[in-house]
Amino acid sequence: MKLSGVMPPITTPFQDGKLALDQLKMNFQKWNKTGLSGYLVLGSNGEAVYLNEREKIKVVEVSRESIPKSKMMIVGSGMESTQETIRFTNQVANMGADFALVVTPSYFKGSMKPQILYDHFIAVAESSRIGILIYNVPQFTGINMEPELVAKLSEHSNIVGIKDSSGNIGQLSEIIHLSQKGFAVFVGSAPVFFPALCVGAVGGILAVANVVPQESIQIQSLFNKGKIKEAKALQNRLTPLAQAVTTKYGIGGLKMAMDLAGYFGGDPRPPLKRPGKEVEEELKHLLAQLKK
Amino acid sequence: MKLSGVMPPITTPFQDGKLALDQLKMNFQKWNKTGLSGYLVLGSNGEAVYLNEREKIKVVEVSRESIPKSKMMIVGSGMESTQETIRFTNQVANMGADFALVVTPSYFKGSMKPQILYDHFIAVAESSRIGILIYNVPQFTGINMEPELVAKLSEHSNIVGIKDSSGNIGQLSEIIHLSQKGFAVFVGSAPVFFPALCVGAVGGILAVANVVPQESIQIQSLFNKGKIKEAKALQNRLTPLAQAVTTKYGIGGLKMAMDLAGYFGGDPRPPLKRPGKEVEEELKHLLAQLKK
Amino acid sequence: MKLSGVMPPITTPFQDGKLALDQLKMNFQKWNKTGLSGYLVLGSNGEAVYLNEREKIKVVEVSRESIPKSKMMIVGSGMESTQETIRFTNQVANMGADFALVVTPSYFKGSMKPQILYDHFIAVAESSRIGILIYNVPQFTGINMEPELVAKLSEHSNIVGIKDSSGNIGQLSEIIHLSQKGFAVFVGSAPVFFPALCVGAVGGILAVANVVPQESIQIQSLFNKGKIKEAKALQNRLTPLAQAVTTKYGIGGLKMAMDLAGYFGGDPRPPLKRPGKEVEEELKHLLAQLKK
Amino acid sequence: MKLSGVMPPITTPFQDGKLALDQLKMNFQKWNKTGLSGYLVLGSNGEAVYLNEREKIKVVEVSRESIPKSKMMIVGSGMESTQETIRFTNQVANMGADFALVVTPSYFKGSMKPQILYDHFIAVAESSRIGILIYNVPQFTGINMEPELVAKLSEHSNIVGIKDSSGNIGQLSEIIHLSQKGFAVFVGSAPVFFPALCVGAVGGILAVANVVPQESIQIQSLFNKGKIKEAKALQNRLTPLAQAVTTKYGIGGLKMAMDLAGYFGGDPRPPLKRPGKEVEEELKHLLAQLKK
Repeated sequence: MKLSGVMPPITTPFQDGKLALDQLKMNFQKWNKTGLSGYLVLGSNGEAVYLNEREKIKVVEVSRESIPKSKMMIVGSGMESTQETIRFTNQVANMGADFALVVTPSYFKGSMKPQILYDHFIAVAESSRIGILIYNVPQFTGINMEPELVAKLSEHSNIVGIKDSSGNIGQLSEIIHLSQKGFAVFVGSAPVFFPALCVGAVGGILAVANVVPQESIQIQSLFNKGKIKEAKALQNRLTPLAQAVTTKYGIGGLKMAMDLAGYFGGDPRPPLKRPGKEVEEELKHLLAQLKK
Repeated sequence: MKLSGVMPPITTPFQDGKLALDQLKMNFQKWNKTGLSGYLVLGSNGEAVYLNEREKIKVVEVSRESIPKSKMMIVGSGMESTQETIRFTNQVANMGADFALVVTPSYFKGSMKPQILYDHFIAVAESSRIGILIYNVPQFTGINMEPELVAKLSEHSNIVGIKDSSGNIGQLSEIIHLSQKGFAVFVGSAPVFFPALCVGAVGGILAVANVVPQESIQIQSLFNKGKIKEAKALQNRLTPLAQAVTTKYGIGGLKMAMDLAGYFGGDPRPPLKRPGKEVEEELKHLLAQLKK
Repeated sequence: MKLSGVMPPITTPFQDGKLALDQLKMNFQKWNKTGLSGYLVLGSNGEAVYLNEREKIKVVEVSRESIPKSKMMIVGSGMESTQETIRFTNQVANMGADFALVVTPSYFKGSMKPQILYDHFIAVAESSRIGILIYNVPQFTGINMEPELVAKLSEHSNIVGIKDSSGNIGQLSEIIHLSQKGFAVFVGSAPVFFPALCVGAVGGILAVANVVPQESIQIQSLFNKGKIKEAKALQNRLTPLAQAVTTKYGIGGLKMAMDLAGYFGGDPRPPLKRPGKEVEEELKHLLAQLKK
Repeated sequence: MKLSGVMPPITTPFQDGKLALDQLKMNFQKWNKTGLSGYLVLGSNGEAVYLNEREKIKVVEVSRESIPKSKMMIVGSGMESTQETIRFTNQVANMGADFALVVTPSYFKGSMKPQILYDHFIAVAESSRIGILIYNVPQFTGINMEPELVAKLSEHSNIVGIKDSSGNIGQLSEIIHLSQKGFAVFVGSAPVFFPALCVGAVGGILAVANVVPQESIQIQSLFNKGKIKEAKALQNRLTPLAQAVTTKYGIGGLKMAMDLAGYFGGDPRPPLKRPGKEVEEELKHLLAQLKK
């Protein structure tokens, strides 16, 4: 199994505020028919922060049943505490996760110096039964992983990659250049998927791939075939939708777009909300623009 | 019981990485002999983000046993999800908490618009069996509660106050001026305790009060007696220590200072660390400066 | 002449885009009848960045003629280059300025390390024929002067004070505590004038004092008489207007409020603009609220 | 003359604090022998903020004499005031500038709303005798030009391009996609030169091109020939030097590197400083790494 390609950070479906696991299975059935290389379960877009541990376990179980062995299953397992991160990482490993995605601890921002972050990731890597990927998402954590620090961490055999959602291509480029050969650098921001491929990213873990997996994959396919111009053009058509389902309307917008595209989206958990009618019209329009 | 005065956001003692509840009881015995008006349990400095729910329950139980009825027991009960916040708030209410401190949800920063935050706090207030205080701590959450929003929330009879740890006195002053009469505004940043009292704060929930409760209380006593000059002078002597145990050395520094002052501090949980020898010398010096 | 009290950073009047010096004289005639302790000429609110050197000279000349010897005349003389700052500082000294206000150089933000800033201010102080005040205004410069740096600079006999417009009362308090005795600390943010006096500021250089000098001065008078409660109440009434003429509507709003209060405000220079009718109504309302 | 290719924002040489125009001519003689498509005179790296107007005029004169008609001469002409910007833009136009680079006004950051910026650039474009390029450099100005605003401005026939130094490739990509056909988008940040070319930038205005013009140009040549891998590899070798002469050591570092590479660098003007010996060793090393 090669760490590369396009993966959605899957959303977690709810009905009446409760886990809607059948809907999740249905989404997987559709996604599985595409060229998605795998899935990120319990990521930010999975509303992991709104799930209690019992719910997390259920989501992982259903995902494991639904994901074929030919596709990767990465599970978000990072917690604020090093010890809890290790515990939960091995729990999801035991449940069949292929890799764990470990977010930077971030609550005590002022204390999260490079050495503290280094020690945290090394401790997790040392104790984890599966390979881990670093999750850098400064827009949510307020913490950024500098390229030098990532490069140092990439030397550990059990730290196998990173999802960098900063959107900073200069940083992504440096991470790729400085880190160990074979270290898998995924971009986590769809509007820069094409330039990320240019600088050497192995793939993308992209919210918008929940909605339009084919088009997301197509950018990388075109790029791999050397069809640079076409890849760039498709990126330009994807970008407005990609922004709408992330920075602009958040997970409420993402789930609404999934509903419009034939998946089960549903409502996010409060305090998040489903956007109103005008956003629905805008999303319909953006989907139509992309499909034509 | 009047919401006012000085309270420490109590630290959570660990030994060999496990809860050290006997040490917590000992700390309470000492604190109870001072003029502290109450305690914040499971606050940021209580490393609540590093405790699982079972541990949180134990800390609340021991605190409830240790805190006399004459002193307030406020318990931090905020979670990212509205539903979980309500559940846990009522759980601590059932365990005897006098008030709950509810932090702003913050993971999806871009989505945390004023209306979303308003609805969250109102929903919690509506369902909570005890009065709630808003917890504004932008340095950890990346989210700030604007005075107008706080003022609107202060109209709800079950939203009884705020702990504002922003350190922004202009904002604190506006909150006090705009919010309903009787809304209890606590400052959560010791270096501005004295100016906060000047603009009308009812008290302080201050990390440094874990270490030197008497001196912290003394600032407010002097202020209340109209001894402005003496209050200001004591503030100036307290500030360096207050900064050392927060922004400068974090919870590791706070716990070390507690050890030096005769309380049980111990180590924070990883990824946090206890600082080295030089910091210990600096803290000793700062304590000596304050006491002389 | 004692560095203390309330001073307006005077606006520069324009008519048809040209300096309107007669209008400036008229403003001075009115201001001179109040208890203002002096004036800041060529400050941020004087649109110094929109004046060429010839115009600056004229404004200083007219100000010198209009300001009685009993009131201080501080002139903004800071430039990006150390050499030009020295040159212009001595030029305004020769024209009769009592003190010069020197803003932090800021264009190359990343290079403005503490030592660079220290050397700049010392070089200016060494060569200046008049005492200088440091001007800290991070909202415009993106640079903040840390208390330790200010304290070090306060040891120089020709660096006589600071105007700190950061609005950060904790910082102001530290600056006052750490700097040399007699170092004059002015606050440059009207919404925190009262708390600034509490922590020991000698006065305020306040945009809103262009509009309502009496009320601004009154806050300090009340404070000095120990009428803390009344000072605080007046501050609360002043704050909305003070915010409207700075952060909310900028210099366009400040000049409009001056027109409404019987001074000559006029239009700011483009790209700044005079706000529309609704803002005029709001400002009228705020003035009426303050006056009643 | 086509707006594209690699241009250095030329440094301004000083000796004993005075303009060293002969040294500037010598630099031009060397640069002219390379494939640089033109020059930016009086840019940020030209220390324009440290020059008085008389000095600026001299630098433009000498540049005009030194730059062959086959290469573009762009001159930085932006000021805070709209009126002064127009005046100086036409002055440099009269002196033979091919294009003017107009930086966003930025001092009153809070007031620089999109409409204000739009009106400013339109006013300058309307009155300018030469085509203008927008200069977006948020790291110095604290102001960012959003892609939608740039796109709207690109509709004006006299606004011919932009230098975007934000380093944000997602933004650059959107600007290219949304703006009018033929609008020339230059990247102003060398570490992302290669990805900028991928998303369609026409060239780069790069500080490091003062030092190593050949290597900078080579990245674009390789890219144009479809040698993507080689272009990327050269970018990776250029990046450490590019960072050293900008974010890391500023203009002092840039000028030092020029001295090491056979150009005249000299000292920057105070408050900037020439870095010490260790930086010189580091720069030597970085140059050697790039050349080998």
